[in-house]
Amino acid sequence: MPLLTRITGPRDLDRLTPDELTELAGEIRTFLVEAVSKTGGHLGPNLGVVELTIALHRVFESPKDRVLFDTGHQSYVHKLLTGRQDFSGLRAKGGLSGYPSRAESEHDVIENSHASTVLGWADGLAKANQVLAKDDHVVAVIGDGALTGGMAWEALNNIAAAKDRPLVIVVNDNERSYAPTIGGLADHLATLRTTDGYERFLARGKDLLERTPVVGRPLYETLHGAKKGLKDFIAPQGMFEDLGLKYVGPIDGHDIEALESALSRAKRFGGPVIVHCLTEKGRGYQPAEEDEADRFHGIGPIHPDTGLPIAAGGMDWTSVFGEEMVKLGHERPDIVAITAAMLQPVGLKRFAQTFPDRVYDVGIAEQHAAVSAAGLATGGLHPVFAVYATFLNRAFDQLLMDVALHKCGVTFVLDRAGVTGTDGASHNGMWDMSILQCVPNVRIAAPRDADQVRLQLREAVEVDDAPTVVRYSKGAVGPAVRALRKVGGMDVLREPGADRPDVLLVSVGALAPMCLEIADLLDKQGISTTVVDPRWVKPVDEAMAPLAEGHRVVVTVEDNSRAGGVGSAVAQHLRDAGVDVPLRDFGIPPRFLDHASRKEVMAEIGLTAPDIARQVTGLVARLDGRYEGATAGAVESARD
Amino acid sequence: MPLLTRITGPRDLDRLTPDELTELAGEIRTFLVEAVSKTGGHLGPNLGVVELTIALHRVFESPKDRVLFDTGHQSYVHKLLTGRQDFSGLRAKGGLSGYPSRAESEHDVIENSHASTVLGWADGLAKANQVLAKDDHVVAVIGDGALTGGMAWEALNNIAAAKDRPLVIVVNDNERSYAPTIGGLADHLATLRTTDGYERFLARGKDLLERTPVVGRPLYETLHGAKKGLKDFIAPQGMFEDLGLKYVGPIDGHDIEALESALSRAKRFGGPVIVHCLTEKGRGYQPAEEDEADRFHGIGPIHPDTGLPIAAGGMDWTSVFGEEMVKLGHERPDIVAITAAMLQPVGLKRFAQTFPDRVYDVGIAEQHAAVSAAGLATGGLHPVFAVYATFLNRAFDQLLMDVALHKCGVTFVLDRAGVTGTDGASHNGMWDMSILQCVPNVRIAAPRDADQVRLQLREAVEVDDAPTVVRYSKGAVGPAVRALRKVGGMDVLREPGADRPDVLLVSVGALAPMCLEIADLLDKQGISTTVVDPRWVKPVDEAMAPLAEGHRVVVTVEDNSRAGGVGSAVAQHLRDAGVDVPLRDFGIPPRFLDHASRKEVMAEIGLTAPDIARQVTGLVARLDGRYEGATAGAVESARD
Repeated sequence: MPLLTRITGPRDLDRLTPDELTELAGEIRTFLVEAVSKTGGHLGPNLGVVELTIALHRVFESPKDRVLFDTGHQSYVHKLLTGRQDFSGLRAKGGLSGYPSRAESEHDVIENSHASTVLGWADGLAKANQVLAKDDHVVAVIGDGALTGGMAWEALNNIAAAKDRPLVIVVNDNERSYAPTIGGLADHLATLRTTDGYERFLARGKDLLERTPVVGRPLYETLHGAKKGLKDFIAPQGMFEDLGLKYVGPIDGHDIEALESALSRAKRFGGPVIVHCLTEKGRGYQPAEEDEADRFHGIGPIHPDTGLPIAAGGMDWTSVFGEEMVKLGHERPDIVAITAAMLQPVGLKRFAQTFPDRVYDVGIAEQHAAVSAAGLATGGLHPVFAVYATFLNRAFDQLLMDVALHKCGVTFVLDRAGVTGTDGASHNGMWDMSILQCVPNVRIAAPRDADQVRLQLREAVEVDDAPTVVRYSKGAVGPAVRALRKVGGMDVLREPGADRPDVLLVSVGALAPMCLEIADLLDKQGISTTVVDPRWVKPVDEAMAPLAEGHRVVVTVEDNSRAGGVGSAVAQHLRDAGVDVPLRDFGIPPRFLDHASRKEVMAEIGLTAPDIARQVTGLVARLDGRYEGATAGAVESARD
Repeated sequence: MPLLTRITGPRDLDRLTPDELTELAGEIRTFLVEAVSKTGGHLGPNLGVVELTIALHRVFESPKDRVLFDTGHQSYVHKLLTGRQDFSGLRAKGGLSGYPSRAESEHDVIENSHASTVLGWADGLAKANQVLAKDDHVVAVIGDGALTGGMAWEALNNIAAAKDRPLVIVVNDNERSYAPTIGGLADHLATLRTTDGYERFLARGKDLLERTPVVGRPLYETLHGAKKGLKDFIAPQGMFEDLGLKYVGPIDGHDIEALESALSRAKRFGGPVIVHCLTEKGRGYQPAEEDEADRFHGIGPIHPDTGLPIAAGGMDWTSVFGEEMVKLGHERPDIVAITAAMLQPVGLKRFAQTFPDRVYDVGIAEQHAAVSAAGLATGGLHPVFAVYATFLNRAFDQLLMDVALHKCGVTFVLDRAGVTGTDGASHNGMWDMSILQCVPNVRIAAPRDADQVRLQLREAVEVDDAPTVVRYSKGAVGPAVRALRKVGGMDVLREPGADRPDVLLVSVGALAPMCLEIADLLDKQGISTTVVDPRWVKPVDEAMAPLAEGHRVVVTVEDNSRAGGVGSAVAQHLRDAGVDVPLRDFGIPPRFLDHASRKEVMAEIGLTAPDIARQVTGLVARLDGRYEGATAGAVESARD
């Protein structure tokens, strides 16, 4: 990598010739495929923005100018060009984040990976520049998929309103988010692409010419060079100009010279302007280019030549859900499925293949997913909206005001709930069981194993007058955990083996095996423990208070924020019942969690069997009067 | 009202002649001005949709066809035409809701009043019709203001994607939400209005002709009749058609015949279609037409002739905030203000007049308000986003992932927090202190009086590395409540007058006077009580646990959902500190509250001094062993 290793910051790009830039792009692609094959990460999106990122850093002066990436998984090239070329620890503890990170570099601004935010950030930064009379530039890169999110629209509407406030919007149009982008906007972008007959001719020409590479390449380059002069003349009209945004494009997003030319003009324009770039996700890496599903959007470790996964996993939570949905689809014609641009990641692909007329990909639009689900339910169907737990935050108001207030039978399936780890702070599904507590009538299931996913999904879709939530973890599902008996609607997983048991351990979802381990550890300390899985964590089972009353202390364990989570709800339930048995609640401390493996994160926050067993032992000892430490019963992890 | 009183349902409209329909429109306007003058309510929006609603119910067959209203405050005319003509109890307990209500009528579908949802509902209902092979129609009425919300965009993108799924979107374009609509979309709508030269001519002609009413009217009608034939020919191109939506308009929204013609064509079209109607908010009521601020959007009781308020209020929470913002604006040039289309209702009008370059009305776009605030803060300013508490739900993910994760100093000012009453379930600000508990680093202030609003706002804008929230009630601010002393950062409002006090009463925000009353009532029972106002309710003050330890029971009182609110947070704080003093938390039960006056709602949910004092007395008696009822300590209101 003779060129790449010489790049220590964006200004090093200024010295390179056009040929060297092309060479650099090739080096970066090779680097990305090799590095990400080893660690896993977002490959396809970054292969698509190699030339674009080079051009951005040649035209703009980061960090003085703000170069912003939407859904920062497309920032690997940006990292390479801003002094971060050690990808060996990508997404691992202590290594590079998979997203931009302010802690890593002054060139990084937006850390989070919830989509469609970049235009809002850009609007705010541009406004600040105006108030502070700075003439720095703001440039925002957003994918066509992210443009389907409502926030993008809200921002465009604001950006377009200030004709004299400079702001460059780069639409990175690869015709897909995870999967191909859908909807009216996608159709319009397609029109923009094809309106430009000359561009279409070029594209066709390119295909043709590249089949005869020796002769073809220079001829293609010649044609391509000629194109740029025509750009201003043939720019199509469209909705962006209707909104009052100057439009430049479409630009070949793999032609550095064309990109620089367009970006430079946009930079000089002095107002809001859209630069429409056409890129190919997975560009230059054959396995990605040929993968129609998601073009290697995000991958685990793979073999770099074949693109095949190295680690073979067992059954995962998502697949269990996906299979059961197909069964339910056969049994109940009223069941329809909704995804927000993540059909495959949330496990709905087989349902979509089996029932193509009963699945809706609404784009990156969680709000619309929830509201349209209310409409579907009111219209007589039972919608199941499958979404990553962390993205449900986007639809909180709609779940509350549209689904719950209107008593609609809608099932929300939350995948990747709890600590997810490597994707960092914004991907952990640690908010849902807190924010949903105040939603009237919503019922929340936290299945502990594959059988419970199937069973509780079935119970959920039976409810036709309230929202139901089924939340489960990321990755491989653990072994089945058998119930010994029922107390109310709850499963007793372990009996105390003592007449006057010490601890009632309330286990939430996938933490059941860990809770059984805690009980074993307590057993060794002579502390008798009942382990109960409430299955439905909201509302709290009416049998909880009487059960708790028979114990000396109640301990709850959940993979959700401690703040206002299941532990708090159980505590309130006991207070309301007048049961003042001491309770300790373990969960995720209310802070943002740095990226690391799930196991490392769990250890760091003290959500391990030994940690919890030790603290519970201290608490019981205090109740026994055997231990006089003033705060022995306090939860240590709460200090984070 | 000879015609109106004969209308018992939409089909009664079929019999009326064109002249009678015009007469009916006049009767409805007279009715609305008289009725709403007495009760208060949404006047301007309803005066604007009289003809439109009549035409909708003549063309479509509700309830078989679904006639949907966005932000249902524009549904009064719909109520009048669907058998609900007793407006005497409008928005009062037991009377008509101020919004559509499924309990009132089978003609009502969407109850909530959070804006921009209707297109999502319509999309869901239309999809259900398709799956169930029904040929019923769905028609959604949305204002131009609500189109600035991201949900509308998400829905349009989905609706446009299905060319064969019938759905009629009526854009009720009055060029304003509360205030004039802003942004690129508003500009584009203006273009559509004026692109059509013929329409413009007609409008001018109408003004001219109506000044000579006797001759003018027929001439205008003749011109107007001729117009419709030309419509298809001169319909302007625009962004809606770019998105793939058939566009019809603009239509004079006060011409019943023109409306019926356009709606009938749209109904027959067989795919998604937009009907662009131009209306005047406040139409036909001079005081409203002449009010440039909000055209009598929502009013209290007024004198019908002058439009002046009948009840003169004292200083309200909003004004206290608004005044202090102006002072802060003078002191700190880095402070900027943001509103989501509610400049005047949230108290920012004077700030906007004083600092026009430092205020941003982002449209009905709470998500954008929060994200652009993160950008503004990162750019070096301190934004203050003032919003009704209930609408913050829309920006939860952005507050969490954009503002808090990025450690941005942004202040959220939540107006109308707690029970608001007459607007019903969707306007109560009872969610914020629950959903914000899990947001790392956010600080929440609940000022108890005007002085504290000023002081805590100042404390809030001093924080530059985390979001701060200041939340206060609706309406008149109560008398100043003096602090006796400080414990940590908390104000002690009342001392127990006993060495070993019984109750620590934690008072949140505006409930301080009520908590003092509770303490007096307890005093009479021989129960000694400390009343403390934490001022900042999140994080819980470190002094809380030691203070609680000196009491026999802790009682919290808040005007927020009990589920996961301040009481739960205090309880967790005490558990973590190993302080197992029994706690009882009083607040709003986790259910949707029907409309009634604030006082009536508070009484119904048991948030009154006598109710709480009685329950606390029972709890203390139980601790004394004086009372043996099994659940005497239970919180009764929790049973709701």
